Amino acid sequence: MLGSIEAGGTKFVCAVSDLALNIVDKVTIDTQTPDITLKQVLQFFAKHSIKSMGIGCFGPIDINPHSNTYGYITATPKAGWQHFNFVKTIQDHIDVPIAFNTDVNVAAYGEFKLGAAKQTNNSIYLTIGTGIGGGVIIDKKIITGRHHPEMGHIFIKRAVGDDFVGNCPFHHDCLEGLASGPAIEKRWNTKPVHIDDNHQAWQFESYYLAQAIVNYTLTFAPDIIILGGGIMHKPHLLSKIKSTCLTLLNGYFPIDDIEHYLSLPKLGDNAGIMGGLLLAKDLLHK
Amino acid sequence: MLGSIEAGGTKFVCAVSDLALNIVDKVTIDTQTPDITLKQVLQFFAKHSIKSMGIGCFGPIDINPHSNTYGYITATPKAGWQHFNFVKTIQDHIDVPIAFNTDVNVAAYGEFKLGAAKQTNNSIYLTIGTGIGGGVIIDKKIITGRHHPEMGHIFIKRAVGDDFVGNCPFHHDCLEGLASGPAIEKRWNTKPVHIDDNHQAWQFESYYLAQAIVNYTLTFAPDIIILGGGIMHKPHLLSKIKSTCLTLLNGYFPIDDIEHYLSLPKLGDNAGIMGGLLLAKDLLHK
Repeated sequence: MLGSIEAGGTKFVCAVSDLALNIVDKVTIDTQTPDITLKQVLQFFAKHSIKSMGIGCFGPIDINPHSNTYGYITATPKAGWQHFNFVKTIQDHIDVPIAFNTDVNVAAYGEFKLGAAKQTNNSIYLTIGTGIGGGVIIDKKIITGRHHPEMGHIFIKRAVGDDFVGNCPFHHDCLEGLASGPAIEKRWNTKPVHIDDNHQAWQFESYYLAQAIVNYTLTFAPDIIILGGGIMHKPHLLSKIKSTCLTLLNGYFPIDDIEHYLSLPKLGDNAGIMGGLLLAKDLLHK
Repeated sequence: MLGSIEAGGTKFVCAVSDLALNIVDKVTIDTQTPDITLKQVLQFFAKHSIKSMGIGCFGPIDINPHSNTYGYITATPKAGWQHFNFVKTIQDHIDVPIAFNTDVNVAAYGEFKLGAAKQTNNSIYLTIGTGIGGGVIIDKKIITGRHHPEMGHIFIKRAVGDDFVGNCPFHHDCLEGLASGPAIEKRWNTKPVHIDDNHQAWQFESYYLAQAIVNYTLTFAPDIIILGGGIMHKPHLLSKIKSTCLTLLNGYFPIDDIEHYLSLPKLGDNAGIMGGLLLAKDLLHK
């Protein structure tokens, strides 16, 4: 059996599958303090005999295996979770190999192996929701340099007419500060889900997301970019992003397959859990 | 013997080395039409018996070995060089394996193997001059997705007080349109080399380059970023970029080695030629 945890800021999803990745048990647990939440996580896995586990966790986390704080959640603003040794807490109770990575990296891996990026070598998975983040697959592997990427915090240029100051506590008007769900809500004083399709909000949103996609395209030149997260549920947003992207690139970089190049996730909400199971399975072959 | 060509918009540098990479002959040739220039290139190599060759070429070029136009210079504005089949022209006269890549990718490889990025896994080489470009090494390999990166054309935000429209013919005020040598010259009506160290020009320049470095940092999380090209010869620019970079990151991403993290090239003007020889040598082991 394989184990998988998708550790999010509001909920933890835990799953167990057989070696063919058929899920045999699954639970969703509210994210409270580490004590309360991990107790329930461990109770769930105690019912099963797993051989390895994959964890996709909200960040920032330490994924450098040579670091003293490998396996920790680090400087998160989330109360109680700062400097929590996630991997050791699990391993103290379940002594199996664990793959530990960011939620977006693990979801990127799920989409690469089983979803929209299947049969590509290089792909990017973005999530646009409460925050903006991304995971990158290069040459069929998750890239992790000195730290995991924080792709949502890049700088881009302002839309004409947008005087919203931005709500990123670190960078004000970086991409996340201008285009995350809370940024949209703060700028227009309405939840994104209630904003009409023809509202200027979506012009701004597609302009910012298209710029980010252009920047990632010009630097990584991936085969596909997958756009996940709650904001992407908005009808028409994806097609607005596609056309703005081509306008901004202005023929400079060859994207002749924009319909496929920018895709929604194929695994939907399961990208993270499936990515965790896949990483767990990879560990058995190491 | 190994061969190397650094094919630039104003000059071609050709070199031959022994297998230990000691250069035994070298020539610099003006870039004129392909006919005139390649004739001289071939005359130079006719004097030597080389086993393989590495070429770093100005772009855009086609480096996809599965493409029908692999080995071509593609949509360059440079008169006479559009759709020139570079690799075949060489191979028709010198029948050896050829590695063909962009000038910046090859220079990035040189700096990775022998220069400032030695003993790292992930590095970026940028050149800031007539244009702005970059090459990326991930996991000790040059990354090349669907196309070579065009990192100089990313979008960034405006400096307060800068109303220069930008001079990129494709994107107006992308990074290259705001921060290349010709952009500086057009904005201030003076060649960059004549602009005083305390001039506002260098505030703008360091702000734009620091934003680009922040964006590359947040997406690639490399071990080192190397800053080459003519504009970086300006004294004090590197230290301005470093401090602006830290200010913009605002503690969000761990860079505790900024002095080393942002470095000038160690191979100086030889990064391209040495990178070409290294790629030629790699071909012998394939």
